[in-house]
Amino acid sequence: MKTIDCETNPGAYRHLRLTFDGAVATLIIDIQEDGGLKPGYQLKLNSYDLGVDIELADAIERLRFEHPEIKAVVVRSGKDRIFSAGANIYMLASSSHPYKVNFCKFTNETRLAMEEASRESGQHYIAAVNGICSGGGYELALAADEIVLVDDGSAAVALPEAPLLGVLPGTGGLTRLVDKRKVRRDRADVFSTLVEGIKGKRAVEWGLVDRVVPRSQFDATVQERARALVEAAPNDSGEKGIELKPLDAERTENRLVYRHVTVTIDPERRTAEVMVRGPEGEPPETVEALHKAGCDSWTLAMARELDDALCQLRFNHETVGLLILKTTGDPERVLAFDRALARLADNWLAREIILKLRRTLKRLDLTARSLFALVEPGSCFAGSLFELALAADRSYMLDGAEPPVMVGLGPLNGGLLPMSNGLSRLETRFLGDPTRVQQILEHKELFDAEEADEYGLVTFVPDELDWDDEVRIAIEERAGFWPDAMTGTEASLRFRGPESMETKIFGRLTAWQNWIFQRPNAVGEKGALTLYGKQTLPEFDWRKT
Amino acid sequence: MKTIDCETNPGAYRHLRLTFDGAVATLIIDIQEDGGLKPGYQLKLNSYDLGVDIELADAIERLRFEHPEIKAVVVRSGKDRIFSAGANIYMLASSSHPYKVNFCKFTNETRLAMEEASRESGQHYIAAVNGICSGGGYELALAADEIVLVDDGSAAVALPEAPLLGVLPGTGGLTRLVDKRKVRRDRADVFSTLVEGIKGKRAVEWGLVDRVVPRSQFDATVQERARALVEAAPNDSGEKGIELKPLDAERTENRLVYRHVTVTIDPERRTAEVMVRGPEGEPPETVEALHKAGCDSWTLAMARELDDALCQLRFNHETVGLLILKTTGDPERVLAFDRALARLADNWLAREIILKLRRTLKRLDLTARSLFALVEPGSCFAGSLFELALAADRSYMLDGAEPPVMVGLGPLNGGLLPMSNGLSRLETRFLGDPTRVQQILEHKELFDAEEADEYGLVTFVPDELDWDDEVRIAIEERAGFWPDAMTGTEASLRFRGPESMETKIFGRLTAWQNWIFQRPNAVGEKGALTLYGKQTLPEFDWRKT
Repeated sequence: MKTIDCETNPGAYRHLRLTFDGAVATLIIDIQEDGGLKPGYQLKLNSYDLGVDIELADAIERLRFEHPEIKAVVVRSGKDRIFSAGANIYMLASSSHPYKVNFCKFTNETRLAMEEASRESGQHYIAAVNGICSGGGYELALAADEIVLVDDGSAAVALPEAPLLGVLPGTGGLTRLVDKRKVRRDRADVFSTLVEGIKGKRAVEWGLVDRVVPRSQFDATVQERARALVEAAPNDSGEKGIELKPLDAERTENRLVYRHVTVTIDPERRTAEVMVRGPEGEPPETVEALHKAGCDSWTLAMARELDDALCQLRFNHETVGLLILKTTGDPERVLAFDRALARLADNWLAREIILKLRRTLKRLDLTARSLFALVEPGSCFAGSLFELALAADRSYMLDGAEPPVMVGLGPLNGGLLPMSNGLSRLETRFLGDPTRVQQILEHKELFDAEEADEYGLVTFVPDELDWDDEVRIAIEERAGFWPDAMTGTEASLRFRGPESMETKIFGRLTAWQNWIFQRPNAVGEKGALTLYGKQTLPEFDWRKT
Repeated sequence: MKTIDCETNPGAYRHLRLTFDGAVATLIIDIQEDGGLKPGYQLKLNSYDLGVDIELADAIERLRFEHPEIKAVVVRSGKDRIFSAGANIYMLASSSHPYKVNFCKFTNETRLAMEEASRESGQHYIAAVNGICSGGGYELALAADEIVLVDDGSAAVALPEAPLLGVLPGTGGLTRLVDKRKVRRDRADVFSTLVEGIKGKRAVEWGLVDRVVPRSQFDATVQERARALVEAAPNDSGEKGIELKPLDAERTENRLVYRHVTVTIDPERRTAEVMVRGPEGEPPETVEALHKAGCDSWTLAMARELDDALCQLRFNHETVGLLILKTTGDPERVLAFDRALARLADNWLAREIILKLRRTLKRLDLTARSLFALVEPGSCFAGSLFELALAADRSYMLDGAEPPVMVGLGPLNGGLLPMSNGLSRLETRFLGDPTRVQQILEHKELFDAEEADEYGLVTFVPDELDWDDEVRIAIEERAGFWPDAMTGTEASLRFRGPESMETKIFGRLTAWQNWIFQRPNAVGEKGALTLYGKQTLPEFDWRKT
């Protein structure tokens, strides 16, 4: 299969357009039917595939970094009487199971990024629904702060996946219905079994949309709502964005080489080494210096590269089962960069950089590959980079080296980079011993292997005699375990503690969807998804599970 | 397939024995190898199947009703150096997907009942692990309050499912490791990929067990821990249990007839009508009257019957997709019985009856069948029986009948019957409007259809002109939807709001397990579960999802 490139920019968009008017941006969805990422389907009725979602993710991210003056984003369609018919069914039906699952995961991450932009960056989204709004189309609207639906006797919102295709809405729809919009669950039941959806007053009464307006007043109402969001926003202090330049990346068959990240894939062993280089030089200590560094500032550049690498691994290297996380550089320097960034956190750009790192680390948590961190001589697992070790399923730290291998904690480990469950990775790690977190954060010096072991920061601390064998055997064994069982185990162990709408989407909803995406009733030869749009009727195994 | 009977009693046990010594009971697990519920497998090494778990569920329930004097229950093995090897693999490998899923669901409900007995009834469990304790064997131990492991150089606890069989521990093991026992997640990762498990001091250090003791001190330590639990319990007030007599039940192919519950199955339409009859006569107003009524008291009898009916439907009527919940009787009388029970709630028996009803309603919530409640003339959806309507995915109430159809709320709707998410069904229903719950509970009169609609208590209120068609079409349509998509939809919508260890076990863990139980890597011709114990090595699709 063709390699999938997850990097894009507005000049290269085929499906989206961004326009700007003061503090209001408009994101126009106008999907090119013949612009599918893979052959074999037409993106009719503004239905989307991964290519569209890559543009959407890019647009949301650029709005935050390049247009901090924007307070309201109107998401509308470039087509008449069609908002979006959702994910393209023929694309889904013709995709492999891993591709379907990773496609849904990526679209979910993108919708959550919209909600994070609203909550954390003050960029609020309005979905201007001018017509057909079905499945993933309505799920996109659900991720907005407000939904305005045209009232023309036919436009309706719908989640027809279950009754029409025998699958679930795969982008958080059911969870957002009852947990975000708090639609009464019996109404949600009715709604999500109604192919034709719900329109007009009932859509408002049931909480499915925020308002319905006649076509004649539609544009004016949307603009008015956008202005209201802008007026409610804090005063604009004349912020100027920074440009997100293309990544300096060389992507070949088994290597991804960026400036701060290098991924080396071993297809035989089904492993990939992810090497992250720490910063060089001095950190930007002032707002001016940070803005001048722009997208070249180490934290942002490293996060963007790691994020791209994770997407590459998910889509283009499906059989890699284990990521071996490594770092190289000076741990004290990582902490110095972290401290400088944390000190500037009131500035919008510093905040956005931290949020980008947060999203990237969440993407790592959610990547269905086993994660081992190897803390070796020359490494710099400190501060923001120690989060990699905390995100790992386990970690190995070399004991007794000269000079000793060290790890360290800093201001970014204290809660600025929470997981999807709302807790920091340290809090999640020490759920049974919360006082430990404070002790660790108060320990200002670096930890050698013995101390790291004592404080519980790493899993194993083999010495030089044992290291090679112990680590090699662990890697070989892990990469040889049945892949599905590892996915299920990791999904259960990584997200301990509290659950949030986010973890419910990825844990509960995604797991059920994965199950259904595997069931003969959906994807078998006579399954509903397989036979969609064909003359033959699906056949079912009626046994309930 | 042979019909499965979920009712048993100690005289009929084949695998368990209960002994009593003052306030300490001992539950001895001594599984008969040739006592499997189905042919084709031997229950070696104290491995279990559904038949064993039905006995376990019965024992836990009887301890609560028949032996309120018991404060500590020691769970031990009747076999030398073997605690339990968990669920029988050959049984799982030879079972259908729906059976595997329902088996795991039932065992999970039983483990949660153990934990509820500890938390709510003061009957604390000690797992006395004398040897092999693997998979479901360790998961049973995890459900206890304390785990004592023998330290003999070989006895270990283990969750070998993922590395050995390519599936997950299916009875809450992963969730209890990290969320109940709060084992550090990297250690949980190591532990659950280690076929041989962990023994001795490390098992204590990692929090996998509470203590390890040499074989010579094993029995004495277990007894000492049991005594300590008894001493920490509130003073025994000389409580005498009630007998749980056999249900008065007639179970034929398409009908289950109990005293207060009748289930009529329509295999063609794939529906079952579940009719619950309200109480007759006067409620037991005193502790003495309640004890005298014993298991014949309406609430307890009805709950036991409904519980049995749900198990029958799950195991013996797999293709029934929709349960139509109905009631018949006097709503005021239901409320009178509820009020009497709530007034006596300080008494242990009243408490146990309420808890049994709570567990039964949770079993309903967790039953993977669509649930419609029909509120018709002559019905008594009030108080405890209104919980059936609240548990339903949707409800229809006839408007305009003469005399009007009425529903009502009472003291049992206010929080004594919480769902797995910890909220009452009313709170879950009105998650977006919490003040509504109070308003409804303060409304002392019954509600007619119009009022019920206005307060949001029911989904639809068709009048007599529309009722027949509207209800018939809704039922036909629902029973015709793809079964898996309904299961996934309902699992997402029913458990909105907060998540608990319980909802995580049923939502996150179960959904992942269902997925894996469907994957070719586990159950395909060359899957790990299929080929377990055979000469052929499994083959895998290494693509990660």
